[in-house]
Amino acid sequence: MKFNQFFQKCLQQKATFLTVGIDPDPEKLPTGFAHTLQGVYNFCREVIRVTADLTAAYKFNFAFFELWGWRGMRILERLVAEVPDDILLIADAKRGDIGNSAKFYARAILETLNFRAVTISPYLGSDSLKPFIENEAKGAFVLCLTSNPSAGQIQEHGGEKPLYLRTAELVRELNVNQNLGLVIGATKPGQLLSLRQQFPELPFLIPGIGHQGGETEQAVMVCRQNGLGFINLSRGILYPDEGKFPDNIRAAAQYYHDLFKR
Amino acid sequence: MKFNQFFQKCLQQKATFLTVGIDPDPEKLPTGFAHTLQGVYNFCREVIRVTADLTAAYKFNFAFFELWGWRGMRILERLVAEVPDDILLIADAKRGDIGNSAKFYARAILETLNFRAVTISPYLGSDSLKPFIENEAKGAFVLCLTSNPSAGQIQEHGGEKPLYLRTAELVRELNVNQNLGLVIGATKPGQLLSLRQQFPELPFLIPGIGHQGGETEQAVMVCRQNGLGFINLSRGILYPDEGKFPDNIRAAAQYYHDLFKR
Repeated sequence: MKFNQFFQKCLQQKATFLTVGIDPDPEKLPTGFAHTLQGVYNFCREVIRVTADLTAAYKFNFAFFELWGWRGMRILERLVAEVPDDILLIADAKRGDIGNSAKFYARAILETLNFRAVTISPYLGSDSLKPFIENEAKGAFVLCLTSNPSAGQIQEHGGEKPLYLRTAELVRELNVNQNLGLVIGATKPGQLLSLRQQFPELPFLIPGIGHQGGETEQAVMVCRQNGLGFINLSRGILYPDEGKFPDNIRAAAQYYHDLFKR
Repeated sequence: MKFNQFFQKCLQQKATFLTVGIDPDPEKLPTGFAHTLQGVYNFCREVIRVTADLTAAYKFNFAFFELWGWRGMRILERLVAEVPDDILLIADAKRGDIGNSAKFYARAILETLNFRAVTISPYLGSDSLKPFIENEAKGAFVLCLTSNPSAGQIQEHGGEKPLYLRTAELVRELNVNQNLGLVIGATKPGQLLSLRQQFPELPFLIPGIGHQGGETEQAVMVCRQNGLGFINLSRGILYPDEGKFPDNIRAAAQYYHDLFKR
């Protein structure tokens, strides 16, 4: 099944744009979980168990697994294998290298680890993006306008035509297999709406809601306009301010599932 | 010892700007090595054995280890531990994520894996770079103007003031601990010389010589001007066109050691 068809099926079946971000910070695990790699594994497994019927996608943040060296990557592979088949698996790895290296990163993430999609960086241009989209069954979300405070330093360079627009245009040009999308932060609601108008055919992966302070309303509106969007929540679901584990995680996921209703 | 002092010591001791890039492509291993992860390990180990006295640094390209999943990362950790202490260890990982994730990537690469330096991408701005340079003993090379054919699509955006110049300025501003440098391809000799003039205090990591067609003369000149440079050779040393392993690798490393004489 083509990437495009697969992810739309995930969104339809779950009737939500919710994507749960798996960012297991060992210092933030709930009571009862050791601050060890085994604790991380047990925690993530529980999170997946109580959220799998509520989310269209999981976005695994590689930083939190690489932290533990090869043992962390072994745990990541184990967790990925345990996710039900009807959920989009996004590797939040933000890779970006010259063509020959990109080819090997693509094989690593989309074949060895068997993710369906990956986040990638556009700084090196099209050579660095193409290897990730050769297989029509797999896809990639390219960093475009991100949710962090310093994003504008580089992404808005260029004056009248800011770099993030150039990035979006490049992604449009490369999207012959309809398996590319953009990462656009919910912290920039004006630009998010404007990019949705300009690039109606590209799916958006939208981080930045919750701890990062992004605007929920616009993120949901943008996704509903054409149905091509994923709204990521990581800390807001994994570490609720109150309640008892795992009910609090279930409740947070249910809340965002409904808020991001398709 | 501060990063700055350490890498200058490496350059002085070996009297060369040579950096050997460890990019083990399983399809390109010499006769006698299985095209397996064990073959990759045995090959890299031999490469390190016959080049360690000739190189100032090793640059490990993570793509070629991630290719094998967690087992590849275990091999990477083993190899890194075997490199002699007087050689700069560069993780060519090109990471670039929002601040909270960048913090974990920095811990992963500079603490867990114990690299001394890492390559990082500037697309997300200063938040994504700072965690890598908080420890003065460690350092980072930021992608600025890369050696691949499509580099200009993004890096030259902005007309009169191309993005790569903005990147270099941002790196200069952040370089309070004197542990930041730039990645600048030898395939752009004019800009390489010009950037050396404009940013005399920043060390350069220069890829692109050999298979990528970069200009040797300008790369060496730029390094000699202030002594702050590393010229990377990967395929040109790992896979010589002729000769018998491992003598051919030794000979190639000796050739580039002398060509890149400090």
